[in-house]
Amino acid sequence: MKIELKPIGIIHSPFKSKEDIPCQSYKSAETGEIEVFKEFEDGLKDIEGFSHIIIVYYFHSSKNYSLNVKPFLDRELRGVFATRHPRRPNRIGISTVRLLERKENLLKIKGMDVVDGTPLLDIKPYVQKFDERKNVKIGWLEDKLKNEVKNENINSSFRE
Amino acid sequence: MKIELKPIGIIHSPFKSKEDIPCQSYKSAETGEIEVFKEFEDGLKDIEGFSHIIIVYYFHSSKNYSLNVKPFLDRELRGVFATRHPRRPNRIGISTVRLLERKENLLKIKGMDVVDGTPLLDIKPYVQKFDERKNVKIGWLEDKLKNEVKNENINSSFRE
Repeated sequence: MKIELKPIGIIHSPFKSKEDIPCQSYKSAETGEIEVFKEFEDGLKDIEGFSHIIIVYYFHSSKNYSLNVKPFLDRELRGVFATRHPRRPNRIGISTVRLLERKENLLKIKGMDVVDGTPLLDIKPYVQKFDERKNVKIGWLEDKLKNEVKNENINSSFRE
Repeated sequence: MKIELKPIGIIHSPFKSKEDIPCQSYKSAETGEIEVFKEFEDGLKDIEGFSHIIIVYYFHSSKNYSLNVKPFLDRELRGVFATRHPRRPNRIGISTVRLLERKENLLKIKGMDVVDGTPLLDIKPYVQKFDERKNVKIGWLEDKLKNEVKNENINSSFRE
């Protein structure tokens, strides 16, 4: 079975190369613009009511996939499906971003973590009831994110 | 630009037709099984550590798309990108489900809301820090979900 998709838009981002991108959108205060192609503009009706949207896009600059990858936060090889690494069999990425403004077919967003020119596949409203879960365990990421918080605290105490 | 994807697995669900499915996975206590094809099994390494995963799949039984759709919870036409409706230009669906158990290439999950035989495109770990947002506004869904809660309370008071 082959599935054929066509981009519905393009993401304009201040990040011109992969190396510039923060590892997750929650770490990014950067703004950017989503251009939805004119033929799909009608599908944006009612989107203004949502403060956050989930953007679904295609990691177009990842050429091949690996089943084991070294994630940004780790030095060990991990199964690609236990990471958000772009080198996945179907190169689909998702990010939850803040919707700042809509002007016709253009969406101004905050929390940008993709490279400029990334093809957009879909937009979904972020709904806490649908998208949040309690009592969550996050496996190998547990220690990594804890250390990250610790380092951030150390850094901010240096700044004080 | 055309993007070609290939399923990495198949979702086995107790729901044999679209009419049986709850409108969102948070409303479902049903279990099901994700079969990841053997060639991708190595990519599941470390997945056991996560209590919840985001499954990305293809709405294979939706034939055409509409830019304006009538969502399950509403009587008005809404822009498809302001809904989770399956009749979208690229028929990608996402659900956050509980991972109960892994046996080799099989994942037992809870919170099933897709039809049996749905092609699986990707699996991502659910990570609160990446996937949760505060101060969320949910537009047209605000009243609908409030009424839902009210109705649930009425129902549960009947049960008491």
